[in-house]
Amino acid sequence: MTTSGCSLANDFYEYTMAAAYFDKGLHVNASFELFVRGLPRDRAYLIAAGIDEALDYLENLRFSGEEIDFLRRQPAMQNVSGGFFEHLRELRFTGDADSMDEGRPFFANEPVFRIAGPIIQAQIIETALLSIVGFATAIASKAARVVDAAQGRAVSEFGARHAHGIEAGVRAARAAYLAGCTSTSNVEAGRRFGIPLSGTMAHSFVMAYEDELQAFRDFCDVFPHSATLLLDTYDTMRGLEAMLRAGLHPAAVRLDSGNLLELSQRVRRRLDESGLADVKVVATSDLNEYRIAELLAGGAPIDAFGVGTEISTSKDHPALSAVYKLVHIGGEAAGDRVKLSEEKHTFPGCKQVWRFREGDGRIERDLVAAIDESYDAEALLQRRFIRGRSVHQPLPLDKLRERCLAWRNEMPEGMRRADSHTPYIIEISERLHAELDEARQRIQARVEVDS
Amino acid sequence: MTTSGCSLANDFYEYTMAAAYFDKGLHVNASFELFVRGLPRDRAYLIAAGIDEALDYLENLRFSGEEIDFLRRQPAMQNVSGGFFEHLRELRFTGDADSMDEGRPFFANEPVFRIAGPIIQAQIIETALLSIVGFATAIASKAARVVDAAQGRAVSEFGARHAHGIEAGVRAARAAYLAGCTSTSNVEAGRRFGIPLSGTMAHSFVMAYEDELQAFRDFCDVFPHSATLLLDTYDTMRGLEAMLRAGLHPAAVRLDSGNLLELSQRVRRRLDESGLADVKVVATSDLNEYRIAELLAGGAPIDAFGVGTEISTSKDHPALSAVYKLVHIGGEAAGDRVKLSEEKHTFPGCKQVWRFREGDGRIERDLVAAIDESYDAEALLQRRFIRGRSVHQPLPLDKLRERCLAWRNEMPEGMRRADSHTPYIIEISERLHAELDEARQRIQARVEVDS
Repeated sequence: MTTSGCSLANDFYEYTMAAAYFDKGLHVNASFELFVRGLPRDRAYLIAAGIDEALDYLENLRFSGEEIDFLRRQPAMQNVSGGFFEHLRELRFTGDADSMDEGRPFFANEPVFRIAGPIIQAQIIETALLSIVGFATAIASKAARVVDAAQGRAVSEFGARHAHGIEAGVRAARAAYLAGCTSTSNVEAGRRFGIPLSGTMAHSFVMAYEDELQAFRDFCDVFPHSATLLLDTYDTMRGLEAMLRAGLHPAAVRLDSGNLLELSQRVRRRLDESGLADVKVVATSDLNEYRIAELLAGGAPIDAFGVGTEISTSKDHPALSAVYKLVHIGGEAAGDRVKLSEEKHTFPGCKQVWRFREGDGRIERDLVAAIDESYDAEALLQRRFIRGRSVHQPLPLDKLRERCLAWRNEMPEGMRRADSHTPYIIEISERLHAELDEARQRIQARVEVDS
Repeated sequence: MTTSGCSLANDFYEYTMAAAYFDKGLHVNASFELFVRGLPRDRAYLIAAGIDEALDYLENLRFSGEEIDFLRRQPAMQNVSGGFFEHLRELRFTGDADSMDEGRPFFANEPVFRIAGPIIQAQIIETALLSIVGFATAIASKAARVVDAAQGRAVSEFGARHAHGIEAGVRAARAAYLAGCTSTSNVEAGRRFGIPLSGTMAHSFVMAYEDELQAFRDFCDVFPHSATLLLDTYDTMRGLEAMLRAGLHPAAVRLDSGNLLELSQRVRRRLDESGLADVKVVATSDLNEYRIAELLAGGAPIDAFGVGTEISTSKDHPALSAVYKLVHIGGEAAGDRVKLSEEKHTFPGCKQVWRFREGDGRIERDLVAAIDESYDAEALLQRRFIRGRSVHQPLPLDKLRERCLAWRNEMPEGMRRADSHTPYIIEISERLHAELDEARQRIQARVEVDS
């Protein structure tokens, strides 16, 4: 599935609001910013992802006749003018879009995407943008932690089987690779995105034979350079000894149950004693960044990790608190906008995120400022669409991945540890603070006049 | 996206194992069973879902020339015979499939799906089947809890924005509706599956206007019979009072922040005092089954709940421990199969799940038995494919939903409470126990002979 043909994959209220804007003549430009309200516990930073897919979605935004007829038939739409549905028929994205780069580390309350354009267009895409960016960002952010915990050892993502459907599995593989995983098990993701594939063998392969050793022999025979033998179908050490006695020389062995620290040490020792120092030890079995950090801290001689569900669903935090908020209205009702609901306020106006560095290139702090402020720092939001025309030149995924790793290397080291509580400073500019206060007072005054 | 064209969305090792089976002439029939190893804490039961989609996947299984070429180009595949790729070109699903019904409540260690057929076919589909069935089952199982907590009040699923991508959002909406949600916000899910749509308004609609009341007026004007006004953009009670003074009569009002118990009581009282007893109170804001149970226990006069992320990602348990295990091999290597890895054994052979009832129709216990045992109870696994021919007649989603609710009404009442720890008895037949012991001894003996 590409993102084209998904123009109806938004909440119904996006279309009812759009209909009301249209029928009431509210043809203004509006700016919406997408950001994450707060980082989950156990996430010191996030990795922006899904950006290129979201830009692709904007480029392909259009409604088929059948989609429009479906909307028109909804009981709630009975009083909506025919003009609105005609408007949808011609609708393309004609606004501006700014975003952070795919793979950029970012933090809470920093806009990662901004849409500025006709309010109907900017409104109706809310659900899809949040879902595309929020999901990929959640997965990339989790994968980055796992990759960092592995301290340079290979991490293969193989979570497709527990991903949220086939398409989510393919997309999760891309986000995981972007964040530094070395390969995926998902063949469709390999085909679609050029991600290197890896695979071992399943217990079913061993069980399909009467005899475990014959299964090992056959697999090594068909895959002389890449066979990874799974040792634990019946008993890990016995599986290994059978393999050694038979003189098999696979590329790697996989441990998938039991005490991985102890087993990896025993297996490594026996491999080395048997002249198989080049045979790698791969570990799997519900791994995540904490388990990997613990295994490596204990000195486990593991060369590569396979990580599944924990990455492909971001299991501890499967959703981010990503929101898409109106921050500015142009035209007659011009002005910056804030929401003041209890505990959920937003800062008014369009913003830029500035990243300040130390002399050695390490990043020091971020500043969220009004869009027309300027600082001697790196501006993280870049223009992607100008009046509906894409000015985005997507990089190949391998380049994105390299860049993501380089950016993470600029972060304070403590932040990349699994148990990091290293704080990072995100300042809000004085201007934004002042404008929020002003907006508060303005709304307060209006409410009091109304009362 | 339909499930056709997803034949590569499986783990690479499915194809390498298939290649080894082919090149080593292991052309046997194999039976695999899909089941969930253990229920997550906070799930007293699961709802089978994704069944019809999985059957559709089987029916559409075929490889394009491009897909086969991609596989063939993989470095690991260099020693694989050309015959294997020719075999893939002609491959269709020609086996048998059995499954539980879509919407059926089930428990840990009960096979919910079985594939029996040529081992290559049965092997390669593992990843996709697990992902399709596991994901939909996780969502339906969570949604069922939320629906039950709402005690007959409407529950609208609106989690698309935090679902794992666009397609996952659409599929989650279906699973949620199957399990008893009354509507979805996801328009594409409405179009594709005929699920009723519902929607309210977002804060952005109110913020697009200089004046909250004008936003309310305009929305009621365009949607005279269905408008739901969101009260909390600036202050819930002030928003309500403005609406009352203006004499607006929306279908409902929505509370989205603050103390929902207290606010719902205050809002209900003011609506009733103002002659608006028919205006419904809708509550949203990070709701789940626990929050809903708490609100209703406190006497919150809430008519309908909107539940998003908690349902669309099954946030507390975003993945089930679903597995797909080889249980029987036919042909030369004939016999039942077990895996004995530490803490992860499987029972050998093909199975049936029998559901026993009390005199009043309530379900009493389940028995997992060997396939050729017979009991005076309901057999939950039914034939869906016979030698590649579908014998499944899918019901419309509304019928599936009714049936799912009826089946849940047969469960012991305590099991449906959010905090249920009501045990349900799942027995394993004596035959299966004996066969596991026998298989253990057989493998043990073989290992000792080998040693």
